[in-house]
Amino acid sequence: MTIASTGLITLIETDTLVVGAGPIGLFQVFQLGLQGLHAHVIDALAVPGGQCIELYPDKPIYDIPGLPVCTGRELTDRLLAQVKPFKPTFHFQQLVESVSRHSDGRWLVATATGPQFLTRTLFIAAGVGAFVPKELKVDGLAAFSGQQLFYRHAPAAACADKHVVVVGGEDEAVANAIALTQGEHRAQSVTLLYRRDFLQASDAQLALFESLKRQGAVRFLAGQVTAIDAREGTLTSLTVCTPEDDVVSLLTDTVLVCQGVSPKLGPISQWGLAMARKQLVVDSGTFATNESGIFAVGDVVTYPGKKKLIVCGFHEVTLAAFAANALIHPDASNVLHYTTSSALLQQRLGIHQP
Amino acid sequence: MTIASTGLITLIETDTLVVGAGPIGLFQVFQLGLQGLHAHVIDALAVPGGQCIELYPDKPIYDIPGLPVCTGRELTDRLLAQVKPFKPTFHFQQLVESVSRHSDGRWLVATATGPQFLTRTLFIAAGVGAFVPKELKVDGLAAFSGQQLFYRHAPAAACADKHVVVVGGEDEAVANAIALTQGEHRAQSVTLLYRRDFLQASDAQLALFESLKRQGAVRFLAGQVTAIDAREGTLTSLTVCTPEDDVVSLLTDTVLVCQGVSPKLGPISQWGLAMARKQLVVDSGTFATNESGIFAVGDVVTYPGKKKLIVCGFHEVTLAAFAANALIHPDASNVLHYTTSSALLQQRLGIHQP
Repeated sequence: MTIASTGLITLIETDTLVVGAGPIGLFQVFQLGLQGLHAHVIDALAVPGGQCIELYPDKPIYDIPGLPVCTGRELTDRLLAQVKPFKPTFHFQQLVESVSRHSDGRWLVATATGPQFLTRTLFIAAGVGAFVPKELKVDGLAAFSGQQLFYRHAPAAACADKHVVVVGGEDEAVANAIALTQGEHRAQSVTLLYRRDFLQASDAQLALFESLKRQGAVRFLAGQVTAIDAREGTLTSLTVCTPEDDVVSLLTDTVLVCQGVSPKLGPISQWGLAMARKQLVVDSGTFATNESGIFAVGDVVTYPGKKKLIVCGFHEVTLAAFAANALIHPDASNVLHYTTSSALLQQRLGIHQP
Repeated sequence: MTIASTGLITLIETDTLVVGAGPIGLFQVFQLGLQGLHAHVIDALAVPGGQCIELYPDKPIYDIPGLPVCTGRELTDRLLAQVKPFKPTFHFQQLVESVSRHSDGRWLVATATGPQFLTRTLFIAAGVGAFVPKELKVDGLAAFSGQQLFYRHAPAAACADKHVVVVGGEDEAVANAIALTQGEHRAQSVTLLYRRDFLQASDAQLALFESLKRQGAVRFLAGQVTAIDAREGTLTSLTVCTPEDDVVSLLTDTVLVCQGVSPKLGPISQWGLAMARKQLVVDSGTFATNESGIFAVGDVVTYPGKKKLIVCGFHEVTLAAFAANALIHPDASNVLHYTTSSALLQQRLGIHQP
């Protein structure tokens, strides 16, 4: 692996790059590891787990073979433990912006704000698409993105001693509002703004929020942002319309939007790959797309008989890893090794047999 | 399900019959259960688990998704727990002898000594074949099979107060020799006969065996059976040649052979199914063979890209279950349900949500 930093953009050369750190992307890393290949992994979210973490972290899954019941979080943790020996390099909160063929046949993959990658093989394990935050749509607001407008996470400097408005009404919004009232970076004022007049979070979080509200550390306002005020390029206040049609002006230095995420297949459909009904078309023997070196696995693909089930994705990444290794190492032996008996695989797994 | 007993042969009518109770056969049962289909399961062995139990019960497996490490026994136990809600009916120690198309389109499946099945769908999850005991080949011995000659297990009546010779030198042989010295059905004499002069078993078993040997409860003889003696249709003694070329005559009422097992693809190759290089040819979108209603999954099949890995078998049984259900219920909806969210699947799994 070569990492070169030219000017402002870091260029990472790698054999394999996986797009998507959900369960299928993680098991892709594992199967590549068994092939002796190190993986870089890009995900739009801040943490691994994909849909399992974003949509059903605490809900039971019953159809993972050998796990009669496990939550999305537990499955993610188990897969993270399984890939650990292969030391994948994760690049979180990155969206792939473009994929293009380099003159030497490798793929140049650019992210919006992170590194570029020059990779021999690319694995698209993007599920239903990148989970991007649901936007707060108000005229003129987007211009303050990264300075006074943030999604899901805001830097301490943008919050400490500031008037912060958290927009949203579920767990993440409530947790952020609570956190902003505490610690050395605490805000000067914290307002939780939600379109409905009741919040959805755990009983413990709601009780803590109520207690902070009684102490005056945080306020809650039901309503929707209809306009913004700015002076000399600085956002100064939000105009909020309440369910009773009152109009409230809210002194605002920083807006932290926590309205959840929604999946966007987005740019993948513009990479020039063969698609059918918004799915990537793959060969079910190799999980190769129509472009040599680009593989696709999991819910993003289609092939005869395809079912969008995790158990199928686990198989798909397995065959994709074999096919990728054959591409990277055309002279590699075709013999199938088993983790139970192969000294080579056990060495790659970092296992020292007694 | 209809069970009719006509004369001596029991005929079982069923929607699904799975041949092989290894990990892939067990997960086939699970996926059929999610489709609402009950399964009968046939296996040549006396217990479920297939290769996992027969070949590596205590060896770690590292490549089952979500299980960073588990033994063959643990994987089997986990899968048995997972299929429990679907109450499969197991038929152990049965070999499928013939498969033929019934006049109504169903498949008539005959076992050697057990029931016959009339099934709409048949799933061959036979791995490398049926695990059958390695034979003790001596002229004339086979004629005593079931009366004085047994493989792996012998009925109490054939051992109590008899002169029993256990043939074999590994765990199962040693355990059987020890067991025969104890309890109300104990043998009159127990001889463990093995071609080599050292035994392979756990330290604890070997210590117990040595202690019983010192007490005269059991004897050990290194050597190979070269001939038998019989009088009036009854086996009376074995002729044994020792490594030193001595010839020993061993008074024998019962021979219990524990030489391990070896896989036999056997009759499957005569069922008229399309094969390539000793594998069943399947459609990788449905895992259907060339005969409508017969599916094949796991190590016994071939298709483009096929790898003989458990993780691939789990996927194969999943698509096979969907294809089988579509055959049995042609009008069934095509909508994919998830165990995390579907009340129907959770009801089938016997889960009562709070």
